[in-house]
Amino acid sequence: MQTSPRATIALTGLAVMGRNLARNIARQGHTIAVHNRTTARKDALLEEFGHEGDFVGCDSLEELVAAVQRPRTIIVMVKAGEGTDAVIDELVPLLDEGDIVVDAGNAHPDHTRRRQQALEEDGLHFVGMGVSGGEEGALEGPSIMVGGSEHAYTNLGPVVESIAARVDGTPCAAHVGPDAAGHFVKMVHNGIEYADMQLIAESFDLLRHLAGLEPDAAAAVFAEWNQGDLESFLIEMTADVLAHTDAQTGRPFVDVVADAAEQKGTGRWTVQSALDLGVPVTGIAEATFARSLSGHEVIRAAAREAFGSDQAAGEVDGDLVDDVRAALYAAKVVAYAQGFDQIVAGSREHGWDVDPAAVATIWRGGCIIRARFLDRIQEAYAADPDLTTLLTAPFFADVVRESLDSWRRVVVAAARAGIPAPVLGGSLAYFDGLRRERLPAALIQALRDNFGAHTYQRVDGPGTFHTDWAGDRSQSEA
Amino acid sequence: MQTSPRATIALTGLAVMGRNLARNIARQGHTIAVHNRTTARKDALLEEFGHEGDFVGCDSLEELVAAVQRPRTIIVMVKAGEGTDAVIDELVPLLDEGDIVVDAGNAHPDHTRRRQQALEEDGLHFVGMGVSGGEEGALEGPSIMVGGSEHAYTNLGPVVESIAARVDGTPCAAHVGPDAAGHFVKMVHNGIEYADMQLIAESFDLLRHLAGLEPDAAAAVFAEWNQGDLESFLIEMTADVLAHTDAQTGRPFVDVVADAAEQKGTGRWTVQSALDLGVPVTGIAEATFARSLSGHEVIRAAAREAFGSDQAAGEVDGDLVDDVRAALYAAKVVAYAQGFDQIVAGSREHGWDVDPAAVATIWRGGCIIRARFLDRIQEAYAADPDLTTLLTAPFFADVVRESLDSWRRVVVAAARAGIPAPVLGGSLAYFDGLRRERLPAALIQALRDNFGAHTYQRVDGPGTFHTDWAGDRSQSEA
Repeated sequence: MQTSPRATIALTGLAVMGRNLARNIARQGHTIAVHNRTTARKDALLEEFGHEGDFVGCDSLEELVAAVQRPRTIIVMVKAGEGTDAVIDELVPLLDEGDIVVDAGNAHPDHTRRRQQALEEDGLHFVGMGVSGGEEGALEGPSIMVGGSEHAYTNLGPVVESIAARVDGTPCAAHVGPDAAGHFVKMVHNGIEYADMQLIAESFDLLRHLAGLEPDAAAAVFAEWNQGDLESFLIEMTADVLAHTDAQTGRPFVDVVADAAEQKGTGRWTVQSALDLGVPVTGIAEATFARSLSGHEVIRAAAREAFGSDQAAGEVDGDLVDDVRAALYAAKVVAYAQGFDQIVAGSREHGWDVDPAAVATIWRGGCIIRARFLDRIQEAYAADPDLTTLLTAPFFADVVRESLDSWRRVVVAAARAGIPAPVLGGSLAYFDGLRRERLPAALIQALRDNFGAHTYQRVDGPGTFHTDWAGDRSQSEA
Repeated sequence: MQTSPRATIALTGLAVMGRNLARNIARQGHTIAVHNRTTARKDALLEEFGHEGDFVGCDSLEELVAAVQRPRTIIVMVKAGEGTDAVIDELVPLLDEGDIVVDAGNAHPDHTRRRQQALEEDGLHFVGMGVSGGEEGALEGPSIMVGGSEHAYTNLGPVVESIAARVDGTPCAAHVGPDAAGHFVKMVHNGIEYADMQLIAESFDLLRHLAGLEPDAAAAVFAEWNQGDLESFLIEMTADVLAHTDAQTGRPFVDVVADAAEQKGTGRWTVQSALDLGVPVTGIAEATFARSLSGHEVIRAAAREAFGSDQAAGEVDGDLVDDVRAALYAAKVVAYAQGFDQIVAGSREHGWDVDPAAVATIWRGGCIIRARFLDRIQEAYAADPDLTTLLTAPFFADVVRESLDSWRRVVVAAARAGIPAPVLGGSLAYFDGLRRERLPAALIQALRDNFGAHTYQRVDGPGTFHTDWAGDRSQSEA
């Protein structure tokens, strides 16, 4: 017998992330219909955690759809790509106009756009929802970036705002824009995370091999930094990981882990998107490539054999530990500035009208890059929504000015000693490039005109010109 | 009345590049049928250059197809993207099995694959042909990278080998592989060109603002460098451009050109492809982003206002001019090594079996990055086709070893003085990363396991592991 649907929301895909999201939703008092292709997972959820809230177990997508009130909100949390498409294809014929399908995985924004357009033709609403915070965040309160229609957020918003992390009473969840805006913002979040982690890794390398701090001593330094402006989830976790001892060997845990960092794609996507948008995200790019490099075992072995891996002894000027802290802070400001530049550029390109202050607000808690200084980012964009770039916002400009001498000393020391610091160094080059009166890009443009007739502009007036390089070298207006 | 076709090859699209290619082909004694959508261009070609060879003017694609012997080889040289697709769509119904359509523009390799697959279904052969050398090269002898079937090259090869540049009697044209291999190799060629030009630009900036050489003096330095190992088309042209005086103002030409370098997309494509292939092409990426940065006028103005554009006086150790030469050389080796790594990886990914020695051979002449040291690259890959990376080939390893101290001094001096040198510096970080015994990537992987259960491998045995960070910190096999 058909009963009237009682769930306010539904979720299919009960692997760790999906299960934890479902539990979080149920714990917040929402009745949630749950489904998994292999029913055992759903059964296990109900058996183990059924007491946490009001779950409606469903054995098929048909049952799931029937169990939820209209307009239906159905969260899909399955393997990205073909997995998501397969579930959507199966769901769509079961749904009615105004229903809302939510992809809570890390989809590429282009895929989200495609799906959104396809579902729109059927009168359905598709939401690309970025969820950050890992497994624990999904359960205890993640940061949630929602893209999609107003209608969709009217229905989905109350649920996601109730399950999200909260900072100063404000939920770390928001409707960041229509269409793929949510997945785009989540992608850039992950890109910034790559840069952030690489900066921490470079800083640790310098502390250890230039300042001579063993992992436990470096852990204490990171713990101390976490009391100040650098306070953040990742710095805190770094202190924790560096202090951890491997039970099997008694050695520092970080020394028994293979030094090949893996990646799942969002860093790469961020850089690819930034290239299309013309936004130089050098920090994210160098961080992504540093991970690739770490995995190229064969080339690394050949390079060690050809060049040795010796480090130059190298004198160090100044207080290296504090210099590294300052360099890390300044380079981190650059990485975030570049990421926010990309969000602004992406929003403009697609007409999403994303509010950078709102993005900073929901990143303050729940997500991997949560940090004290996101309050400052939020303030900067709230004070000036048309801010040219974070880097020159008063607070951050002060940070960079105060850190600059230290930052230069650290980059110099790393280059001298032969310790790779691609993001610390690349960010400094970016900073120096931005503030330079004249760039040698003029020479590049002149060469392009010479070999390819690509034309140039002049500093002393409007117009586009070409020089007859092969002939009399006269200039003509192009 | 129908006459029997007498042209051995046909070409449609007579803008500058197409016209010059057609003239080059005719000059080499081939009968060529030519066509342009607006017939005036075809008429102008015949009137002005008809005496150079045997042209068959055609007023429609039907006439063009009828004028060429079977199997027909038809070169398409029109606006990339939709322009190319439109011409192909119009051509296909007119062609017969075994005919060959050649796209001689800079198409994205993915588009070339798509077109190749589509035409294959019709029994046609599609060739993506990379042509480098600009307008002058097209006329006088370009470097030509051909992708496609054996059948296609059997017909096209004799023509392209006759029109290409020659070095030591060897034509700078070859069948680099099936499918999109030609356009892929051309794309990476252009990516390397970006890195090469940025390195030259950074070197000029350092010569001028650290060594105090005005453009004419810097021109003399580049001219001198062009007598040695750095001998190349771009170094020679740099000397020429830097020595050029603007007639209007009497100032060095490079000083009147706006310092915003433009780009047409191949650098960006190269980096995007490298990210997918997992090949760290840091030099090309930093060069591409440096061009983007140069064009961001508003952010640059804000940064100058916030931070000033002062340069630190800075002491310089050693012979700066020669140090810059050595740094440029070593970083150039890195950029080429990264580019060739990408070619090898792309070839492997797609099963193209590209011979890197053959690529180096055809880049020795005709193309923008032609340089003396391509002979050394050719020799390195000929001596060891399975070379791990160019960087560790004996000749290049020696170059890097000999240049290393200079290179470090230059990167240090640039960072100290606040002169941006993203590719010189980033390449050094890449080099130091490759040769490092242990990378702090281990810390990144440990953090990933902590917040996302992404697992890790150990240095002391096989297996994939996860630590129960939130619990008792025991390790389990994943």
